[in-house]
Formats: sequence, structure tokens, C-alpha cells
Amino acid sequence: MLEQLHCCLQQVREKTPLVHAITNYVTVNDCANILLAAGASPAMCEAADETFDFSQIASALYLNTGTLTREQEVAMLLAIRGATIKKVPVILDPVACGAIPKKLDFIRKLRHFGDISVIKGNMAEIKALLGVETKARGVDSLDDGDDGVEVCQTLAEKFNCIVAATGKTDIITDGDRVCLVDNGSEMLGKITGTGCMLGALTAGFCGASDDLFLATCAAHLTMALAGELAAENDGGTLPGTFKKNLFNQIYLMNENTMKEQGKVQWQ
Amino acid sequence: MLEQLHCCLQQVREKTPLVHAITNYVTVNDCANILLAAGASPAMCEAADETFDFSQIASALYLNTGTLTREQEVAMLLAIRGATIKKVPVILDPVACGAIPKKLDFIRKLRHFGDISVIKGNMAEIKALLGVETKARGVDSLDDGDDGVEVCQTLAEKFNCIVAATGKTDIITDGDRVCLVDNGSEMLGKITGTGCMLGALTAGFCGASDDLFLATCAAHLTMALAGELAAENDGGTLPGTFKKNLFNQIYLMNENTMKEQGKVQWQ
Amino acid sequence: MLEQLHCCLQQVREKTPLVHAITNYVTVNDCANILLAAGASPAMCEAADETFDFSQIASALYLNTGTLTREQEVAMLLAIRGATIKKVPVILDPVACGAIPKKLDFIRKLRHFGDISVIKGNMAEIKALLGVETKARGVDSLDDGDDGVEVCQTLAEKFNCIVAATGKTDIITDGDRVCLVDNGSEMLGKITGTGCMLGALTAGFCGASDDLFLATCAAHLTMALAGELAAENDGGTLPGTFKKNLFNQIYLMNENTMKEQGKVQWQ
Repeated sequence: MLEQLHCCLQQVREKTPLVHAITNYVTVNDCANILLAAGASPAMCEAADETFDFSQIASALYLNTGTLTREQEVAMLLAIRGATIKKVPVILDPVACGAIPKKLDFIRKLRHFGDISVIKGNMAEIKALLGVETKARGVDSLDDGDDGVEVCQTLAEKFNCIVAATGKTDIITDGDRVCLVDNGSEMLGKITGTGCMLGALTAGFCGASDDLFLATCAAHLTMALAGELAAENDGGTLPGTFKKNLFNQIYLMNENTMKEQGKVQWQ
Repeated sequence: MLEQLHCCLQQVREKTPLVHAITNYVTVNDCANILLAAGASPAMCEAADETFDFSQIASALYLNTGTLTREQEVAMLLAIRGATIKKVPVILDPVACGAIPKKLDFIRKLRHFGDISVIKGNMAEIKALLGVETKARGVDSLDDGDDGVEVCQTLAEKFNCIVAATGKTDIITDGDRVCLVDNGSEMLGKITGTGCMLGALTAGFCGASDDLFLATCAAHLTMALAGELAAENDGGTLPGTFKKNLFNQIYLMNENTMKEQGKVQWQ
Repeated sequence: MLEQLHCCLQQVREKTPLVHAITNYVTVNDCANILLAAGASPAMCEAADETFDFSQIASALYLNTGTLTREQEVAMLLAIRGATIKKVPVILDPVACGAIPKKLDFIRKLRHFGDISVIKGNMAEIKALLGVETKARGVDSLDDGDDGVEVCQTLAEKFNCIVAATGKTDIITDGDRVCLVDNGSEMLGKITGTGCMLGALTAGFCGASDDLFLATCAAHLTMALAGELAAENDGGTLPGTFKKNLFNQIYLMNENTMKEQGKVQWQ
């Protein structure tokens, strides 16, 4: 199976998928750079009168609710409509929906405009989408997620999409199949935007593959493993250095590394 | 007294204060990363319909007038109202108010909506707030600030808040107490955003301490000393490397470094 | 002639030109940092009610259409009017105008409000401005540009401005004089924003020189050569490291490097 995940990465590099991203302005530069490092082509198009047309020519649409300005809200509603018309996969990163109720209202509205293919969030965000009680501090989850697999499967069924929850172990499920990724590093939490970067990467992988479940698993393995290697090499125990290393490791990721160091379980 | 300043840093690391930041989009990523490196939890929440509620659950509110879009103006007015209701400390970084008159008008309005706890700016900005003649080029002060302590004390009394002015020597005062920080490096002016990062850090420290004056002093010492060490080590005389080093040095800052290399005077 | 290009860089360092930039929020931080590394003073002023006044006191105005929010559109129209009144040079970076028709409409409108001094884009963008058929993927050109010099000269005459097209060989022309810059590195395409950074640099150089053609040539040589050196040294074959190196190399650029390694042809 690790071979299949590596194939997903290869497809990103061969197809250079065009990722239309409407994302928070805090980490947008990092999202663009991580996509380039993986081999995808980012386009951060968010002017409200451009997104309906642009999402239709994209390979995937990435929506991130981190800083939801008024113009971004309109831009996202139009973009998801365009993407749905052309069957472009839509990856939703419901940032801070565990802490700010308005994000949930917006996501409810978003679902009336188009189809979500993948939801990627932390455990607090996944539970908030289900209406289950949880704990968050700003954009961070304080939920230990012991009940993670079941929660993700429930959301996957309810929203009829793939659900990926990040945590010490990442969980990816389409409701039926379940993949657990055990790689990672605490350093991923010491810089901003690693969650957003993973969301953007997921869109890149989904834009290059027909199997969105495998593509999502591959994106999570790539990010977690790159984070692990970025922390363990070249002085990556310090955040400034770690950030630089992270882009390097995404760029260097290959089949051998994935096979030898990937810690993936299937259920 | 250096011991007290180190205690402030310890409190940031122990309490993980949630810093609600509405800041310019040029350096927002760096502000988030510097807060994480220091041990705080950043949340860049600036959608106009989210900030009134969000500032009420934050440990501190950071307002930066660098890029004051229409939505940000509304977001800040609502945020300071929420913060004031819940006695959340508000740190104002009046970026470019020495060069762009509109910023002064906005700050006047801001004061009608809530209370400012700390103002942190360069000498041109501090003087502009007092209506004193000064010289600025864009976001940079061209004022030598020979009369700095007196000017800061006057503003502290007039606005009834703590005032911190950055420069070759940083000045922090609550009108009565005065602290001078003599650390720093010219390299801090060779990359964008070090002023904003210091503002964000000040909010982080104020969100973790009861003594806002000491917290502001500690934030300034931490930043100045980290800048000094970032320039003097690991190739930090070049701006790309310096920026990486700066986050590393904030992360590494500790009691010994502060005690041995901190240059702080009290008046 | 390489000596003249070095003089342009020297003038940036001596005059510290104030560059008023209204640019996309993806790479705005990098644009500010590249200007600082070169010796210019960036000011990212884009609130719609500030730009008419601010562009009038700037040394140069940089307009980048990457993320054209509604407020940015108004801000740019007012800024170019102010700049034109005061004969401040205006550098247009028509990002994505090859892929998104709205950008072309906006640029048409922009030209009714003021004068453009320099247009800097990739070949797909230059051709799109001429109404010639071309190929683009998002912000990237897929046009090989065999007919580049002629196309650039045609646009320079039509718009009565300097035109610079980036590619394997950069082409700069005022319609009459032609300069070709053969430096560069594939790594410049592996991180986001190097095109925007070059646009910002061009504004910095134009803000410090009376000969806008030479200034534009000098900016392109500086960026291409810095990119080459950033890739060839200090581990710059990896994107995270390359980005750090790039700022370092801009900061280090000097007469000897330009003379010994600059590959410039004049026609």
C-alpha cells in the first residue's frame, strides 16, 4: 500500500495539478511554497468576481476558513459552485470552526452551493462539524481524540465525503476504509500553518489522482514524514530552521523514504 | 529586576496566552511564528463579524494599523469594545501613523470604543500621537529621539497607558517607572516586520502577566536580545539567515542569557 | 554597460527609495524583504482612502494584480492617479492576466487613471496584454517566447512604456533599446513570488534612477544573478534553503559579481 501512496506523489510531480486556493492570509505564502515543493502549481485566486470561472479550470479547489473576510465568503461560495459543476474535487479545511460559531454557519451555507470531497481538520474541528462537544483554543484542538476513528467515520457518512483528522496519529477515512499515519513531529506545532499546508497539499494530491481517499492518505504521509525528517536533521529542533527544512524535505520526498520510514496502518 | 523579566517569559511558556491579533497582512505570518516561538498561541481573527466575541475570550488583543483595510477598521473597533468589556489588555501598534494622517484619525476613533493598555511604536509614531512634529519615511522613523523618555512619559500620562518606543535604546514607561533596553542589532532593521513581531510579543507577554509594565519590558528585552544573538551567530549578518535565526533565538531564550547579556536600566 | 547597471544598484543603496506597493497578499512579505535587502524602503499601503496621497510622496509605485480584491482595485486606481500627478514612476506587474480575463479589463481601466512606466511580466502576460494568443497555467506562462523581443517591442510602442519579459532569457526594451539577461536558475521557479519580488525590485531601482530603462535592466540582472548564486551555494538546490539564500545574495550583490558573472547583451 505504501507503494500506492508513493504513486500519488509521483502523479503530483508528473501532472503539476493546478490548485485553486482560497485560504487565510496568515499562511498563504507557506501553502503556495509547499505546493511548489511537492510539484503542484498553486493559484491563490480569491477576488469575488474571479473564482466562479477559475475553479472550473483548476485541478482541485482548496477552501480554508481561517480568516474569512466578507469578500472571501462570497469568493468561496462562487468557487465551490464552479468546482461542483465541473466535478473538480473540493478540499475543505474548517480552520477554527471549533472556536468560532460563525465558521460553522458558513460551512453550512457552503454545502448548499456545492459538494465537498474531503474535509481535513483537527479533532476539535471535526467534532464541531458533527455538533459534538469538544475543546479548542483558538485554532488549536485541546481534544485528545480517543474516539477519533469513530467520529471521523460518522462525519464521513453524514457529509458523504472523505474525512481526515490530524493529531498524534492522523486518521483518514471515507467512512469505510480507514488509514492511520503515525509519523510526525512535535515541531509541526511550533510553527504556524502546518495544518494549512497539509490542507493545500491534500488538494494538490487530489488534483492529480482519481482515488481521492488514497490521495488524501498520501498527502498526510508526505507531510507527517517530511515534518519528522525536518525535525531530526539539519538543526530542525529550532523553529526557524525547522520551517526551512520542511520545504526541503517535501521537495526531497521519494519512494525509498516512504517505504522505509512510513508508518501507515490500514483498517 | 532581570529575574522578574525572565519570570514574565516563563509565564508565557506556562500559560500559553491566546493572542487575538488584527494586524497587517505583510508580516502577519512572522507575528504568528514569533508568538509560537515564545510559547504563546496566536489567533489572527479579523473577519468583522467575529472579532467582538473573539476578543472577549482572548488573553490579549494586538491591534496593528499597518494595512488598515475597511473591514479591518470595523473589526478593530468591535474587538477593542469586546476586550474592554472583559478587561482583556489591548496592545496598539500605531504603524505608519507618523506618515499617514488617516491612521491618527482612526486611533482617535478607536479610543472611543475601548481602552488601550500599551502603545508600542517608533519615535515618529509616538510623537505623531502627541501631535508633536517629527520625521518619518513610510513606516520608518527618521527621528533621533533625543527627547525620548520625556515624550513617552507625556504620552503615557495623556493616554493613561504604558508607552514603549523602539530605537537604538528602547524606552518603556508607565508615566512613572522607566525602563531602558540597550540590546539589539542593526539587522533588526534589515528585514520587515521586526517591529510588528515585537508588538505581537508584547501582547503575548501582557496576556500572561498581571504587571503589564514589566511584561512590556520583558517582551522588549526578549526581542532585542534575540535580535542581537541572531545577528552575532550562525551567519546572521545576512538578512535571509538572520530571519531564520531570530525565531530560533526567541525559542532558545532563557534565564541565563537574559541575566548575562541583558542590558537593562531602570529610572 | 555592466558598470552602469551596477551604478543603478548603488543609487538604490544611497537614496533608499520609498516604494509604495499594492500587491498580492501571497508574496507581500517577500516583496518587502527583497526591497530591504536591496537597500530600498518598502511601504505596503493599500487601504483605499490612503493611496491617492501616499503614492504622491513615494519614489515609485508598484502595482501587482495577483490578488485583486475589490478594495485593492479602488486603491490602485487612486494610487496611479496620485503617482501620475507627481510623475512618480509606475511599475505594473500584470500577474495572471494571461489566465483571468478580468485582470485585462482592470488594466484597461487603470490606464485611464494614469501612466504606466514599466510593465514586467512573463511571456503569457505580455502577449495577453497585446491580445495575442498564448498559453498560461494559473500564474505561470507555458509560452516558449521564441518571438519574445518583437512582442515586447510591440507592447512597448503600443503602451509607450518599458516592457520587461521574464523567461530563460529576460528581455527588457523601451521599444528601441533591447537588453537580454541570461543569468538565472530553475530554482527561481521552485518557490513562490520570485516574479513579484522582481517586480518590486524594479520599482525600487526605478525609484532611485532617472533612466528607467537602465534601472529595469539592473533590477533584472540583480535578481537573476542573485538567483543563480543562491542556487549554486550553501545548499540552494533545495527550495527552503534557496529562499533564505536569495535574500542573502541580493544583500551581498556588488560590482565585482555583476562584472564577472553578469551575462547581459544589448541590441
